[in-house]
Amino acid sequence: MRVAAAVLLSVALVSQPADLRSTVTTWTDAHRQAVLDELIALLSIPNVARDKPNIRRNAEHIRGMLARRGFTAEILETTGNPLVYGSLVVPGATRTVLYYCHYDGQPVDPPRWRQPDPFTPVMRGEGADARIYARSSSDDKAPIVALLTALDAMKSAHLSPSSNVKVIFEGEEEAGSVSLVPAIARYRDRLKADLMIILDGPGHSSGRPTVAFGARGIATVNVTVYGPKTGVHSGNYGNWIPNPAMRLAQLLASMKSDDGRVTIAGYYDAVPPLSAEDRAMLDGVPEDTDRMLKTFGVAEPEKAFPKLQYALQYPTLNVRGLVSAYVGAGARTIIPDRATAALDLRLVKETAADLLLAKLRAHIEKQGYHLVDADPDDATRAKFSRIAGIEIDSPPTEAFRTPASDPQARAVVAAITRTFGQPPVQLRTLGGTVPITPFIKAMGFPALIVPTVNFDNNQHEENENLRLTTFFDSISVIAALLRM
Amino acid sequence: MRVAAAVLLSVALVSQPADLRSTVTTWTDAHRQAVLDELIALLSIPNVARDKPNIRRNAEHIRGMLARRGFTAEILETTGNPLVYGSLVVPGATRTVLYYCHYDGQPVDPPRWRQPDPFTPVMRGEGADARIYARSSSDDKAPIVALLTALDAMKSAHLSPSSNVKVIFEGEEEAGSVSLVPAIARYRDRLKADLMIILDGPGHSSGRPTVAFGARGIATVNVTVYGPKTGVHSGNYGNWIPNPAMRLAQLLASMKSDDGRVTIAGYYDAVPPLSAEDRAMLDGVPEDTDRMLKTFGVAEPEKAFPKLQYALQYPTLNVRGLVSAYVGAGARTIIPDRATAALDLRLVKETAADLLLAKLRAHIEKQGYHLVDADPDDATRAKFSRIAGIEIDSPPTEAFRTPASDPQARAVVAAITRTFGQPPVQLRTLGGTVPITPFIKAMGFPALIVPTVNFDNNQHEENENLRLTTFFDSISVIAALLRM
Repeated sequence: MRVAAAVLLSVALVSQPADLRSTVTTWTDAHRQAVLDELIALLSIPNVARDKPNIRRNAEHIRGMLARRGFTAEILETTGNPLVYGSLVVPGATRTVLYYCHYDGQPVDPPRWRQPDPFTPVMRGEGADARIYARSSSDDKAPIVALLTALDAMKSAHLSPSSNVKVIFEGEEEAGSVSLVPAIARYRDRLKADLMIILDGPGHSSGRPTVAFGARGIATVNVTVYGPKTGVHSGNYGNWIPNPAMRLAQLLASMKSDDGRVTIAGYYDAVPPLSAEDRAMLDGVPEDTDRMLKTFGVAEPEKAFPKLQYALQYPTLNVRGLVSAYVGAGARTIIPDRATAALDLRLVKETAADLLLAKLRAHIEKQGYHLVDADPDDATRAKFSRIAGIEIDSPPTEAFRTPASDPQARAVVAAITRTFGQPPVQLRTLGGTVPITPFIKAMGFPALIVPTVNFDNNQHEENENLRLTTFFDSISVIAALLRM
Repeated sequence: MRVAAAVLLSVALVSQPADLRSTVTTWTDAHRQAVLDELIALLSIPNVARDKPNIRRNAEHIRGMLARRGFTAEILETTGNPLVYGSLVVPGATRTVLYYCHYDGQPVDPPRWRQPDPFTPVMRGEGADARIYARSSSDDKAPIVALLTALDAMKSAHLSPSSNVKVIFEGEEEAGSVSLVPAIARYRDRLKADLMIILDGPGHSSGRPTVAFGARGIATVNVTVYGPKTGVHSGNYGNWIPNPAMRLAQLLASMKSDDGRVTIAGYYDAVPPLSAEDRAMLDGVPEDTDRMLKTFGVAEPEKAFPKLQYALQYPTLNVRGLVSAYVGAGARTIIPDRATAALDLRLVKETAADLLLAKLRAHIEKQGYHLVDADPDDATRAKFSRIAGIEIDSPPTEAFRTPASDPQARAVVAAITRTFGQPPVQLRTLGGTVPITPFIKAMGFPALIVPTVNFDNNQHEENENLRLTTFFDSISVIAALLRM
């Protein structure tokens, strides 16, 4: 099977398409039901990461899908759920691209869905807005089927990929991708590539093909200001015993200006000025600011950065939660014993977690606080009038960002531009964080994210769906990548 | 019975004691067990305000105790639990003093007590620290028995009270005293007096007799800063969508200086400077600052006011609770939709709740916020970039404070000084709030609080107790009041 495929592919490589997109759509129009049937079959296998027997069924099923396309297809065992690996060697190709998807999905709460079973797909909606509703319809099984369908359509026109194709499909992304980096030690040779393309996440709301060159990282940290050992009566001691909730408020207020700029010394220092090319890329992203603000019910964004895309190029200091004693039912007239702010710091490539966390610590100390790692003892309480604790909530994930000038990145953008007649929406970085980042950094290859599904897919929620128009468009996007 | 008592009392009035305190203690030493038996019998009747049959039993029992001492004793029906009223007319007396106690107690959670039943009193401890453990042993049945025992002891020495004695014992103080002010319309004549003395609360920790001339009031208010309609992804929108938790922190920080002084314009304006007499009184309160700070585990008090007693003379702005999204389990990387601070404002006589709440509102508006009374609608969200809500949590209780120069107040202090050989600890105001304040204000008479039980009585908690040495001392304190 492998030999036959290699022969076919070497023949196909010589052919160049007049119009790749029409080649693909002509084929998918003719095979629409077969494509959907393959997608539905895959969506029908439950895929919550902890459901080991079904995870195994997914892996075997996908391995079969790969093998039918001539891939060398393997199940790679890990310390957790298995990886599905495939390799398609293209004679004469000088580039190897590793495509990443994940075949597991978020847990489901069936009563909250409009259909009896999230793993029995349902079709709803008419015409251009027809959608398949099922868990993982968008996140992240659709790209697996789109990738293989792109190969099928190309094959029908005797078009082979222009690069060696490797795929790695993960089975526990929604459970934190904990076995992925450890798997490198065992499978590094198989995973080696010149470029990694991550097929995951929703595309830009404009519906245009989208390429993201990176993603911000994240560090989460809890800052606690300590008050009296136990809550004390706010009447008997109000105006005298310091209030930790007020002091936390003052501490947080010292960290950001009124316009939203972080005022911790040197917080942005490591971030180089944006180049003219960077700015051109940011300005090129279609942003409907008014619509976004209306959706969120906010009259005005923060003013520290001129536009959303600019805001995403810098690290954040976000208060994601606050707690001190009680509000509402259970409220008591006390000076609380402590107050805690849960912060998340989004990182950019130049601001590693350690760098920003050190600046945060230094800032808190500069405000007069003695820092502790655990609740202070009596001696510490007697010695320091301001005591704060910093607790790293979970291990940070660093940012990654592939330069737009990277030859592989340029090739991706050029391929999509060629196929669609206009450049993709190019995001210098996603604002959020992807759990694949540690893998990218460990492998050391350039990586791009090509999100292909509809932005309104209800990802991670009930009634997750895949808009079919967007899905069929994505097959051409992936064909463009395969032919770059 | 009433005639006989009046005859006896008119005879007794002419006699003046060489040493009232030794008269009382000689008698109580001789009748110690009988006194304790009467206390134990009263403590054995369950007295949670919602337990109507037992509340009625308490009222009837206390009415009998009063009648046995020659009081005109009545049960006054109210819209809630009954009041027990008593009057003892002293021929020739020109002053009428109304003594207030409450016979209901806090709810109980028996498994948390060291004894099988909080209403089956238990004696524990040796010598000077022997205590009776039972619900309401200190709060507030002890003063009822102490008052009547003082009359018994005085009677044995042919000493009558020097003023007409009225008593009003309430049966739902721990449930908010909601029927007390409404009862005035029906019983105003009975309740009229030249002075009200509230026998409730713990005495000063020094163990010395204590007189408080007032109590601070309270207003509780929730301040909410609104963010996006629902929490939004802190990666996708961090640095761009304003964060309500940070804005709440900035807003709170604008309300207080680093040293704890309220910086809301004019917050203290209505409070007149302390006079030399005021300062002398505040300085005269024994304060063991070091011990208090050690107990609370705080190295240093706030610096806005030099000492605790000074701090209590001013209104507060206390953050009693904070909440925004989640901290710890359940924390999500979002920009929260709202953040709320629960505040309590302790009031002094010169700063009515309305005055301070108006200043708070004005301050928030001055920080650029549009104030709403309910969650903002889309039009409001679109119009105002900063939106905050203020919600009054429960009706405010105003402060009261009887001037130390009031003749009745002077007489109380003089009487205790005469009996104990030194002045009582004199508190210009309690820091906390007493629910009796609206009644005092409605009746318009001067009022003093004479707290008589041990400061460490575990009031409102499990294992409430009464230190017997303190209890027997309190009988002399009350005798001094009766003979003032």
